Amino acid sequence: MKIRVGFGYDVHKLVPGRDLWLGGIKIEHTEGLLGHSDADVLIHAICDALLGAANMRDIGFHFPDTAGEYENIDSKILLRKTMALLREAGYELGNIDATVAAERPKLNPHIPEMKRVLASVLEVDEDDISIKATTTEKLGFTGRQEGMAAYATVLIQQ
Amino acid sequence: MKIRVGFGYDVHKLVPGRDLWLGGIKIEHTEGLLGHSDADVLIHAICDALLGAANMRDIGFHFPDTAGEYENIDSKILLRKTMALLREAGYELGNIDATVAAERPKLNPHIPEMKRVLASVLEVDEDDISIKATTTEKLGFTGRQEGMAAYATVLIQQ
Amino acid sequence: MKIRVGFGYDVHKLVPGRDLWLGGIKIEHTEGLLGHSDADVLIHAICDALLGAANMRDIGFHFPDTAGEYENIDSKILLRKTMALLREAGYELGNIDATVAAERPKLNPHIPEMKRVLASVLEVDEDDISIKATTTEKLGFTGRQEGMAAYATVLIQQ
Repeated sequence: MKIRVGFGYDVHKLVPGRDLWLGGIKIEHTEGLLGHSDADVLIHAICDALLGAANMRDIGFHFPDTAGEYENIDSKILLRKTMALLREAGYELGNIDATVAAERPKLNPHIPEMKRVLASVLEVDEDDISIKATTTEKLGFTGRQEGMAAYATVLIQQ
Repeated sequence: MKIRVGFGYDVHKLVPGRDLWLGGIKIEHTEGLLGHSDADVLIHAICDALLGAANMRDIGFHFPDTAGEYENIDSKILLRKTMALLREAGYELGNIDATVAAERPKLNPHIPEMKRVLASVLEVDEDDISIKATTTEKLGFTGRQEGMAAYATVLIQQ
Repeated sequence: MKIRVGFGYDVHKLVPGRDLWLGGIKIEHTEGLLGHSDADVLIHAICDALLGAANMRDIGFHFPDTAGEYENIDSKILLRKTMALLREAGYELGNIDATVAAERPKLNPHIPEMKRVLASVLEVDEDDISIKATTTEKLGFTGRQEGMAAYATVLIQQ
């Protein structure tokens, strides 16, 4: 059995007038993330970690933000396609551990639902998806609520 | 044997009038990290990586900063409790690799002692705990000495 | 077989009048990264992840920026020396997944060449080195083009 690790990092800007999609669910907030797709920064970091672990380039390579077909797309579709690419290459998920850096809103109450939704999209056990949230204590662009960042590490096996 | 990976990220603000606790030891500096506990940003990132690897939520979930019992607490106690939670769930530590981003003070001379202290708290071999320090070349909030950030990756096995 | 993980993070400032070296290759750009060596932030993050996984301190410990012999040195030499240190300790590379955060220039066209060069320096299969690039959507010091940051995760085995 070959084991590989991957790491994904993604950032999106917060702007008024957009819905906030995070971890595959819509969360009530005064602003939303800006992007070509629904801008779900957490799913994007997970996709990049999965693709990186499998050495299959990154999310921008497979789903370019210049392609009309991905405009405002639900990132869960990108995650499902990403996992399908890995399975075609003979990989299975070991586990995911992802972290969102955001000053507001409080994300902890939403984490169990995010885990349920992402496990269902990936067709894996909920126990294999960990999601965490942290503030950056008002420091940096996440602390000033200019945007959100997400980090994900994954283990896959062939 | 099941192998899992985890990743933790934490940030604390630097303020005058606080002791600087990092990696379980007190370091001479003009400022200290602000937080509900002793604000040891390195230990917190390690706790989050361990909990994330085991899919057991995060440090804020287990040790809420609204709880009086954790006020000014020595983060080594939180690390010991975290490792106990993992062992109860049948996990053992593989290895930890953690990085502190801080412009000042020079942390390299303190790293061997941090490793000794954390290995003793976790009851693991010193060879299984790597600690690294980097500046961010005066860029960002760590570079401006507004705060410190820490990143930790861990491997655990069941 | 013992498996270990490592994580490296590095930052360098962008300044006019320097060549831009990234992933072992020179890239046309209006500015370059500042540092004692060629300041290849991507190679440095990979070196730190490798050293961290093996618990062999970090790049600054082995190749101090106060040493004249490392002034303007090609970071590929540091990477080759790092991998030699790991092999002497009985480790082999599993895989590397690295990410550069930079607003400009477009890095995606250069990634296949970076992978070829780094695989050759490390004497490993190209399939074991993933490199990804992301912008931070004009946010933070990378978004303002004050510098570039790189993140690398690695798996090694003994």
